[in-house]
Amino acid sequence: MDALAIAFDGDDTLWESETAFAVTQERLRALLVPRVAAEVLDARLYATERANLELYGYGAKSFTLSTLETAIELAGDDLAISDVVAILALGKELLSHPVELLPDVEEIVAWAAETAGWTLVVTKGDLFHQESKVALSGLADTFDAVEIVSEKDEATYARILARHGIDPATFVMVGNSLRSDIAPVLAIGGAAVHVPHPLTWAHEHVDDESPLRAHPRFRAIDALCDLPTAIADLRRPLD
Amino acid sequence: MDALAIAFDGDDTLWESETAFAVTQERLRALLVPRVAAEVLDARLYATERANLELYGYGAKSFTLSTLETAIELAGDDLAISDVVAILALGKELLSHPVELLPDVEEIVAWAAETAGWTLVVTKGDLFHQESKVALSGLADTFDAVEIVSEKDEATYARILARHGIDPATFVMVGNSLRSDIAPVLAIGGAAVHVPHPLTWAHEHVDDESPLRAHPRFRAIDALCDLPTAIADLRRPLD
Repeated sequence: MDALAIAFDGDDTLWESETAFAVTQERLRALLVPRVAAEVLDARLYATERANLELYGYGAKSFTLSTLETAIELAGDDLAISDVVAILALGKELLSHPVELLPDVEEIVAWAAETAGWTLVVTKGDLFHQESKVALSGLADTFDAVEIVSEKDEATYARILARHGIDPATFVMVGNSLRSDIAPVLAIGGAAVHVPHPLTWAHEHVDDESPLRAHPRFRAIDALCDLPTAIADLRRPLD
Repeated sequence: MDALAIAFDGDDTLWESETAFAVTQERLRALLVPRVAAEVLDARLYATERANLELYGYGAKSFTLSTLETAIELAGDDLAISDVVAILALGKELLSHPVELLPDVEEIVAWAAETAGWTLVVTKGDLFHQESKVALSGLADTFDAVEIVSEKDEATYARILARHGIDPATFVMVGNSLRSDIAPVLAIGGAAVHVPHPLTWAHEHVDDESPLRAHPRFRAIDALCDLPTAIADLRRPLD
């Protein structure tokens, strides 16, 4: 078979992301209590984020704007300008949050660079913030390419593979999101390795996981350090 | 000589952008008057946008967040939550503003596609919003590549040219910003054609235009319909 191309998701696969959003949301709850109940806030914020996806896209600036909209809707006249100031500050903190690599990332990325013919990052979200995270990760030079995209669907992966001349049969995507990292890659003929993250945004789940989990080109691992085993296992049927 | 590669800037070269920002800013002035004087608002908003560039990057979501910050700083306790609601709505309008092509764009882009070996869009700003503008422009299929970048500096252009195997000596960038479309391209050995737009954000100006304007690979035209003449003129010394 041809040399493998191994691609990694960024947020919550190579580095922590959702944890910082969760901390921010916890602070937001504390800010708005007792005017707004925590569960009401969480549910409405998620609904607002999803409704705004079409206009804002993903990322921390979109999150900040949706948070403001939600706080105003829920707290109404009880919201003070000082709360708006606090929310803008929470958004800035989220954007300037340091990049914390997940366990074993450096070793596994180095292993992939040695093993595969081609390694990539395929990450979704705000272009400016994602570029900054890639730079701060210290891993940028390890990868042959970094692709920052606004949505991870079949068309996106097909475009990336075509651009780099990668045959889908040799492509393995590694990530924590069944919706963004696994389903579209399996659909275009690639292989996918799922590394769960304890905090994964509800939007990244899929309604029915079973067709993905039963797929011959799918592997699930508990942690990134198991990637070499999963890839060795995938290569057999791929050969 | 090799076939030319012609690249176009997006905002205010292919389609209107700054006009919509200016309209939004005018509405913001009207919203905050008489609490905040228009000139004070303009100056402080520009300062806030520049200070936030490092964290927010370019684009309409960044503009909306900087606008909120500025309004709060200037109006203080006189700002009402209803003003925050109005500013969030202005931001959404800006993001959903229809894409209006500038005069002669369709003809000139078609001419470039026939004339050059390679045509690109190189546009700066919010990934999600820029992708949406490219799609709504109806021009996406005319170009060989669309590059959305967070900053247009020498490193960015060098990376794009390397990625597509374009020799800088055959590269011509067409745009309205001396800072982003002209200076870095001339610096890496390419040619550049300046098409001014009556509204260009102050940040896109350069302190001293004369070295650019005197450069042998620089041409200035009044409108995009003059591009064929400028390129013909550039090709002579380029040959």
